Amino acid sequence: MNYENFFAERIADLQNEGNYRVFADLERKAGDFPHAKNYRADKVADVTVWCSNDYLCMGQNKEVLAAMHEALDKCGAGAGGTRNISGTNHYHVLLEEELANLHKTEAALVFTSGYVANFTTLSTLGSKMPGMLIISDELNHNSMIEGIRLGRSEKTVFKHNDLDDLERILKEQPHDRPKMIAFESVYSMDGDIAPIKEICDLADKYNAMTYIDEVHAVGLYGEHGAGVAEREGLMDRLTIIQGTMAKGFGVVGGYIAGSKAMCDFVRSFGQGFIFSTSLPPAVAAGCRASIRYVSQHNEVRIKHQANARMLRDKLDAAGIPHIENPSHIVPVMVGDPVLCKRASDMLMEKFNHYVQPINFPTVPKGTERLRFTPSPFHTEEMMDDLVSCLVDVWQSLSLKKAAA
Amino acid sequence: MNYENFFAERIADLQNEGNYRVFADLERKAGDFPHAKNYRADKVADVTVWCSNDYLCMGQNKEVLAAMHEALDKCGAGAGGTRNISGTNHYHVLLEEELANLHKTEAALVFTSGYVANFTTLSTLGSKMPGMLIISDELNHNSMIEGIRLGRSEKTVFKHNDLDDLERILKEQPHDRPKMIAFESVYSMDGDIAPIKEICDLADKYNAMTYIDEVHAVGLYGEHGAGVAEREGLMDRLTIIQGTMAKGFGVVGGYIAGSKAMCDFVRSFGQGFIFSTSLPPAVAAGCRASIRYVSQHNEVRIKHQANARMLRDKLDAAGIPHIENPSHIVPVMVGDPVLCKRASDMLMEKFNHYVQPINFPTVPKGTERLRFTPSPFHTEEMMDDLVSCLVDVWQSLSLKKAAA
Ligand SMILES: Cc1ncc(COP(=O)(O)O)c(C=O)c1O
Ligand SMILES: Cc1ncc(COP(=O)(O)O)c(C=O)c1O
Repeated sequence: MNYENFFAERIADLQNEGNYRVFADLERKAGDFPHAKNYRADKVADVTVWCSNDYLCMGQNKEVLAAMHEALDKCGAGAGGTRNISGTNHYHVLLEEELANLHKTEAALVFTSGYVANFTTLSTLGSKMPGMLIISDELNHNSMIEGIRLGRSEKTVFKHNDLDDLERILKEQPHDRPKMIAFESVYSMDGDIAPIKEICDLADKYNAMTYIDEVHAVGLYGEHGAGVAEREGLMDRLTIIQGTMAKGFGVVGGYIAGSKAMCDFVRSFGQGFIFSTSLPPAVAAGCRASIRYVSQHNEVRIKHQANARMLRDKLDAAGIPHIENPSHIVPVMVGDPVLCKRASDMLMEKFNHYVQPINFPTVPKGTERLRFTPSPFHTEEMMDDLVSCLVDVWQSLSLKKAAA
Repeated sequence: MNYENFFAERIADLQNEGNYRVFADLERKAGDFPHAKNYRADKVADVTVWCSNDYLCMGQNKEVLAAMHEALDKCGAGAGGTRNISGTNHYHVLLEEELANLHKTEAALVFTSGYVANFTTLSTLGSKMPGMLIISDELNHNSMIEGIRLGRSEKTVFKHNDLDDLERILKEQPHDRPKMIAFESVYSMDGDIAPIKEICDLADKYNAMTYIDEVHAVGLYGEHGAGVAEREGLMDRLTIIQGTMAKGFGVVGGYIAGSKAMCDFVRSFGQGFIFSTSLPPAVAAGCRASIRYVSQHNEVRIKHQANARMLRDKLDAAGIPHIENPSHIVPVMVGDPVLCKRASDMLMEKFNHYVQPINFPTVPKGTERLRFTPSPFHTEEMMDDLVSCLVDVWQSLSLKKAAA
């Protein structure tokens, strides 16, 4: 066994398949989003970023930055410990209050990331609730899947957003058995949205908990940006709402919101929560400022949706194929990892438009795509330029156009 | 099945056992560490913090804070994406270079936390290397244990720091089977240190990889603060060095360092790396500044060790029982969760000294303790005051004194 060879061979395999990932080396320009510097082998270029999940550009919001600067001066760089051992800063307490207030829940619990929030909560509920069955949408995010695996409870997968399949599974289970339906609101790669109300109805009927990942919805939907469940008046019907502060809120960190007892349970038993240093106070302060801002500025969400619509219309007019969906995510399909990467490289190198190729394992093989996420700060001019560059790329690489 | 009752009952169990955790609500005072504000029910008090893992108080270092302010102004709050999808910021690239340079390795890879670094790396190696056996020290940190569990490779536990037991296990394995010895350098609760050289010798003899968690050592040991392996001239003998930037470096985030191919392998297959938003640019900038500072200021480490010695001497003089060990960690033993919490409460409420009771599950039941981590900024005056307060608490609660 030669370890170095083993690693090198697996990397060579990825390269041969066209699945080797090269990270774009960027420097975001606060105050000038969606622009960024792009460090290349030979030079530094100015690019327009089209694939950020800082969907609203809250990362450059003045109130957020001011809150972070202030907390940095006041409390320093790190939290200095795990939440239990000297690492609870007053900003964490305030942030959890803010999150509970946003979701109209009794409590909330902050984790270092949305990944860790999913992972820890699901593994804790799976492992600490005897007899637990987790019923999981087949397209759930990796962080949910891994959390469920680690918890080692029984798990059943239902067909994506398929209520009949979900009911078929629920029907077979004893009413009294602990069970939970785990799903997302906005699925990030296709941009489709779950039938939340109908899932909650089934959960009530069959005595199941509900766990919703609103990672791609918080900040973006609902009168105060609390997510799709807020928009549809369903927040009080979910057992656990999970979210991130790294996307719609533009900072970093994850959370769950729900009842006081449930949050206290995960706080007390969740190992990925207990055994890890908490977020820096300045991050917590920035998240809180962002949630406040976003919840009070519904016009940002209106502009966000209008821009997604505008980009779609321009793509349609130019015959660039994309998946229609009810969200802010605009997936332009290529269907081949090598061509997808080449299209992305051309856009970047020739036209200074940055959109990352999305290949396996983030999406299934054969569904490789360029995933556009226009923010409220992408102007019509930027979109016009992008679309004319896409037309050029589509011609150069002989990619398939949309049916007229 | 009533879910709310279930959660409430488990919480009540913890309360009855004395294992229910109450987080101290703090506000660290940058420029005035180890002092912090403590928010209580009725008032805000000024306290001296004795249990932070920001061991060197780098969280208040001026160069660190300046780097963070600057990056915040330049790049904004969050990274805006996962490392692959618009979330690689130039500061991440520079930080990984800095870390590789610190450990004299070809490469390094940054994660959102030390927890995620352990968890992701171990689960990836366990699941993606066919036939893998992970040989794990019995006192390894929860993040390692959970990563190994998730990886679902075969696993064997060896007795803590026991070379004979380790060799017994290795000897039985085919030379060609992929295997890895996973251990820590400084064990954080007892403060003992692994026999790194001897473990590496065994690894060479039996063709095993080595994985060392230097979370409680980086920044603190070695001429440049690269850890115990640096101090002992062993860095090049380890396959994977894992660390955090949340403790000795005072910020947040985790990493691994090692060969280019190994880091690229984990970068390419590690799900907790791939599927999570990267650290904010300002955090990466702060970490880098901290590593630079710490690597150039060995006097900080000398003072740190001297202060640990001074506190031990004062505890000895006062008859307060603590575990002797070769590290900077000073565990004062109580051995009962309820008394441990009462001692901590008295210190906090009566004397404004904050040291968290360390109870199960962080340490085994029966070994409950107060864990002191004096920094270079704890003065002799603070220590004298602390020790006299401890004597008072020991008397009030009739706790056992050290043998004279
Ligand atoms: C659906 C979903 N859940 C959770 C996460 C993880 O959140 P975070 O980036 O905060 O770790 C992501 C992506 O990053 C996601 O797409
Ligand atoms: C030995 C050890 N490894 C890893 C970690 C996790 O590191 P982090 O706090 O950066 O998540 C910790 C504690 O937090 C630890 O004690």
